[in-house]
Amino acid sequence: MQKAMRGTRLTLGRHIVAEMYGCDRRYLSDPQLMEELLIEAARKAELTIVASKTHNFIPGVTSLVIVGESHLAIHTWPEYGYAALDVFVCGSKDPWKAYNVVYEKLKPERVKVTELKRGVITVPRKSRDTTDNIVIREPIIPSSHSG
Amino acid sequence: MQKAMRGTRLTLGRHIVAEMYGCDRRYLSDPQLMEELLIEAARKAELTIVASKTHNFIPGVTSLVIVGESHLAIHTWPEYGYAALDVFVCGSKDPWKAYNVVYEKLKPERVKVTELKRGVITVPRKSRDTTDNIVIREPIIPSSHSG
Repeated sequence: MQKAMRGTRLTLGRHIVAEMYGCDRRYLSDPQLMEELLIEAARKAELTIVASKTHNFIPGVTSLVIVGESHLAIHTWPEYGYAALDVFVCGSKDPWKAYNVVYEKLKPERVKVTELKRGVITVPRKSRDTTDNIVIREPIIPSSHSG
Repeated sequence: MQKAMRGTRLTLGRHIVAEMYGCDRRYLSDPQLMEELLIEAARKAELTIVASKTHNFIPGVTSLVIVGESHLAIHTWPEYGYAALDVFVCGSKDPWKAYNVVYEKLKPERVKVTELKRGVITVPRKSRDTTDNIVIREPIIPSSHSG
């Protein structure tokens, strides 16, 4: 019996989903601080910052940063001391470097954090590469801009 | 023995994480179509559109829409026929209405989709409300704009 050739399994992206409870509330209602924090996080993870959008709600903040490697997003509920952080990164960069920046600044008393694999695909096997490689798609160059 | 009063458990947001494989590739590399699709999805779910950002990469598209109820994000890899969709919605709106719009247009051959609860908090019990209520924070009014 011969095993079927299944190809090489690749993971296109890594997505950290973080629930941060008991955060430093001074940050959670300040849109400028939150945007600066996400941008700092993207820089520390050596991501390519493409655009950012931040909105201040009553109460709370939404901040999104598009990076060449996907996106970072944070939504805050200062009234509950809670922040929802997403760091979605494709390529070889490490999303945990960005997560750590936010963690260290918001100082949550409790976190629930998960890393999801995004885009697990199988491509024809070309070499002896092991499975579960991370696809490296770099450099990723913005070629146009709308919206 | 009396059970400790634990308060009422509330869920602030619902987050659909969708892996769409075998999508209609005409869409996946067209930034305008992708942005229009996300905006249509937000509208169908009766979300309050605040801002959108779309970028065209080589190859692929990133499109993000900030809504009053959180955000929608899509990243595409047309070379693999794959799209990563996130629909994060707080309040009483239904994220599946937005998901369905994208699903119907991209026609993926295979999907892996999960709904995550975001921000599960416990507040002092005030009434006989059952647990796992969705917090309704509406209307959410943008009060400033930066970025």
